[in-house]
Amino acid sequence: MLALTPGEPAGIGPDLTVMLAAAGKLDHIAVIANPEMLLARAKTLGLELELTEFPNRGSTAQSLSIVPVALPNQVVAGELDAGNARYVLNTLDRATQGCLNGEYSGLVTGPVHKGIINDAGIPFSGHTEYLANLCEDPRPVMMLTAGSLRVALATTHLPLKDVPTAITESSLEEVITILHDDLLQRFGIVKPTILVCGLNPHAGENGYLGMEEIEIITPTLHRLRRERIDLIGPLPADTLFTPRHLEQADAVLAMYHDQGLPVLKHVGFGHAINVTLGLKIIRTSVDHGTALDLAGGGEVETGSMIAAIQLARQLAMHKTGS
Amino acid sequence: MLALTPGEPAGIGPDLTVMLAAAGKLDHIAVIANPEMLLARAKTLGLELELTEFPNRGSTAQSLSIVPVALPNQVVAGELDAGNARYVLNTLDRATQGCLNGEYSGLVTGPVHKGIINDAGIPFSGHTEYLANLCEDPRPVMMLTAGSLRVALATTHLPLKDVPTAITESSLEEVITILHDDLLQRFGIVKPTILVCGLNPHAGENGYLGMEEIEIITPTLHRLRRERIDLIGPLPADTLFTPRHLEQADAVLAMYHDQGLPVLKHVGFGHAINVTLGLKIIRTSVDHGTALDLAGGGEVETGSMIAAIQLARQLAMHKTGS
Repeated sequence: MLALTPGEPAGIGPDLTVMLAAAGKLDHIAVIANPEMLLARAKTLGLELELTEFPNRGSTAQSLSIVPVALPNQVVAGELDAGNARYVLNTLDRATQGCLNGEYSGLVTGPVHKGIINDAGIPFSGHTEYLANLCEDPRPVMMLTAGSLRVALATTHLPLKDVPTAITESSLEEVITILHDDLLQRFGIVKPTILVCGLNPHAGENGYLGMEEIEIITPTLHRLRRERIDLIGPLPADTLFTPRHLEQADAVLAMYHDQGLPVLKHVGFGHAINVTLGLKIIRTSVDHGTALDLAGGGEVETGSMIAAIQLARQLAMHKTGS
Repeated sequence: MLALTPGEPAGIGPDLTVMLAAAGKLDHIAVIANPEMLLARAKTLGLELELTEFPNRGSTAQSLSIVPVALPNQVVAGELDAGNARYVLNTLDRATQGCLNGEYSGLVTGPVHKGIINDAGIPFSGHTEYLANLCEDPRPVMMLTAGSLRVALATTHLPLKDVPTAITESSLEEVITILHDDLLQRFGIVKPTILVCGLNPHAGENGYLGMEEIEIITPTLHRLRRERIDLIGPLPADTLFTPRHLEQADAVLAMYHDQGLPVLKHVGFGHAINVTLGLKIIRTSVDHGTALDLAGGGEVETGSMIAAIQLARQLAMHKTGS
């Protein structure tokens, strides 16, 4: 069984959930959410939905296995309500607890809205960070996948000006070790090869365009190669995403968010997945936001959530098999 | 007539030039280079090459129209020689002069090697900057194109840590004005629409991830919209390169090198072109480097140089037509 949290109730997470249930794609998935809210969204979308309370053998066509969580205020699709922010975190708490105690073999998350949780007076820097805190894992690593392309990030949600100082030998070593170990153990890749981007344009061009490659990145890669981690780089990011390089590797490590994700989301439009590495639990997520303007409208793409479920299943099988 | 500079003689520029001549693709192009060097490279590649001195009606199959430039030392393909660095700049000087005085309607450049020019004791920060200086144009704007995708850069070859402070209201206004005017006048796009990236991840997420969007980018876009420039943004760079956004626009303005070019070079692998905006002259270029390891080997892709020639011709026609 996997756990699925639809996320922000005013967003498209509930839409995706009921659409997948109606299409019979939530087999062996426990949906951790408010039942009335899901039924109302199904009605808005003109979809039939039957709820059965977990545990059972999982959702089937038109039936969805639910772990009910209370929701204070009635939801209007597209309208954020700070009074419902705590509910979103309650679904994550319940799901994570279930993953940690073995009730579920992995977690698939729909989109949450960072702003409304903060507006509710709850400090919240991100979905991934929140889950890492619940799992007591100090350094989650964000990786996005689309088809055969995998892009992990050395830094994530930082202002650009803070990126250069966040790239240190120790942070880079931690991230690369987690990435390597999870590719090996969770993705079942026997000898993972990782392409590492430089921080600066042209990977610093021998120091003409920045010193971080010479002073930090290259020495760190040297040290990790001695621990038998296959690393290529640092390479210029602009030419790295071409067949000549990508064919050699299992994943790319970008130094920061907008260096690696524009190409990943271009390639994976509609079917990209966010997966968190370095956690005790398996967690995959849609790669998109709450899309408030589309909630309740029926015009949403289920591709990313379907892919996130498939990947969580694969990762859970490797875990079971290992 | 266009001018073509093959660039660094030890790199693949001469290979591409003689390969295109042999394929009959240098019609109405004057090649500004050393004749003996080209003949030697043709011999290495097993290609027949006949040189005729410019002016004539241009290169034809197996014949190449040359403007001879002296080269001090004999060239070994793949081996840089600082003694030949001045030659590379001489070809650029001659070509630019010819464009400025109307002898040529545009310039297509092969790759140069920044390091060896600097090693020769000549300060050289880049091909584009060098040409802008010859043309006395203060702010060249670098744009890469691949098919229908055009990506211009607000900053180019800077260490990443220097990017945030280089994005000012005045620099951004200059770049956007040049981009808009060249799309209109050179590319013949009647009402150009430009997608503008944020500087920070998620375009700053309302100030949670950086203030430059609120303090600098958004006010600048507001002001330029009052001058009737169609601008969309600032948008998060990671989701900007998807059909929903790209279909609305004629070009993307990225704030820095590795934000915009990985996706452009991924899309345009083997046929991307670099075009310099904001110059008195028309200038297009291959999007790749000197590839020293491939020089003289016959295994190079001519796609980018062919595309650069085609685009220079198109731009020259708009110029003539206007």
